[in-house]
Amino acid sequence: MTINYPNGRKREKSGHPENEHKTQRINFGNRGMSLEFLLNEANEYYRAHHIANIHKKPTPIQIVKVDYPHRTQAKITEAYFQKASTTDYNGIFDGKYIDFEAKETQNKTSFPLSNIHDHQIEHMLDIRRHGGCAFLIIYFKLHDEMLLTPIEVISKAKRLNKKSIGRQDLQTESFEIQRGSYIRADYISALKLYMEVYHE
Amino acid sequence: MTINYPNGRKREKSGHPENEHKTQRINFGNRGMSLEFLLNEANEYYRAHHIANIHKKPTPIQIVKVDYPHRTQAKITEAYFQKASTTDYNGIFDGKYIDFEAKETQNKTSFPLSNIHDHQIEHMLDIRRHGGCAFLIIYFKLHDEMLLTPIEVISKAKRLNKKSIGRQDLQTESFEIQRGSYIRADYISALKLYMEVYHE
Repeated sequence: MTINYPNGRKREKSGHPENEHKTQRINFGNRGMSLEFLLNEANEYYRAHHIANIHKKPTPIQIVKVDYPHRTQAKITEAYFQKASTTDYNGIFDGKYIDFEAKETQNKTSFPLSNIHDHQIEHMLDIRRHGGCAFLIIYFKLHDEMLLTPIEVISKAKRLNKKSIGRQDLQTESFEIQRGSYIRADYISALKLYMEVYHE
Repeated sequence: MTINYPNGRKREKSGHPENEHKTQRINFGNRGMSLEFLLNEANEYYRAHHIANIHKKPTPIQIVKVDYPHRTQAKITEAYFQKASTTDYNGIFDGKYIDFEAKETQNKTSFPLSNIHDHQIEHMLDIRRHGGCAFLIIYFKLHDEMLLTPIEVISKAKRLNKKSIGRQDLQTESFEIQRGSYIRADYISALKLYMEVYHE
């Protein structure tokens, strides 16, 4: 899959790159960019700079029918999306196993818990038992605010039968992901803080 | 996806389970069972018994066309298999990040290196640099022999422009995976040995 960089990486080559980059940020921000795009950008940057090795897992798909129009080519002609049994992202940072799910919301005041499945929470709690890091990255699109939220926070709210978590409560219990110099979702600093607090 | 257990788990309930199990092993072994099946079985067992949390990643697929025959159902009508950018399996064991690729061969005397891609080797060496475990699980089907081979062994052979590694050399440099009481590919003991040798 080819990846385009709508944040204008290519344009950095012309003119006054520093200023232009700054102007672009102010003018365009990352409006309209999906959290998935921003996280893929971050993960690519981290891999290229040997900071971390974290990947998005492929979408699980149930394949029903495959045709072979040419000998060497397989064409899938019937398939369906499957529910993910784990999370979207995993990998390694600072020798530690990292596992997270990314969710964006258009909601202004709270994060609805309906779009995170029980089996995903169970999976992440199991990762914690094995000594790994497990969390959500939540993106409040309308505020351009990104939070790293430990799975314990989500699990607790679910156990209390809450339907959502208020944005202010989330801010208190999460680690904010700042914009980096080159990437928006520069989540490694937040991850380091999380690891200091949640790992002995 | 439902999983059938052709090794006769269900039959263990009747008669003399111990003896029957033994007989079945002798009669059927795991002839015809794919390495993927055996590893999925092992990973399920490890998760259920809180030994490790390791999953097979979904096959990466490029989706071209999706139909919506019903409002709630999405049917993929054109899609293609993509080359995997990483490996088939990853997860956590004993607090450590685990990453491996599984390969089976009908070859009797050697393991051909053609079916392990350079970018997969690069990925696994990068995991090693970050402090994770990275290896191949190689299954010599005709010998019913399963080896856990550190990625360094594969990388070295590739750098020497070898086309294959002889089975005896592999045995020397690998950790043999024994049959467990309940699962064939009981690779955790081999993994522990690997970790003692390859981790400080």
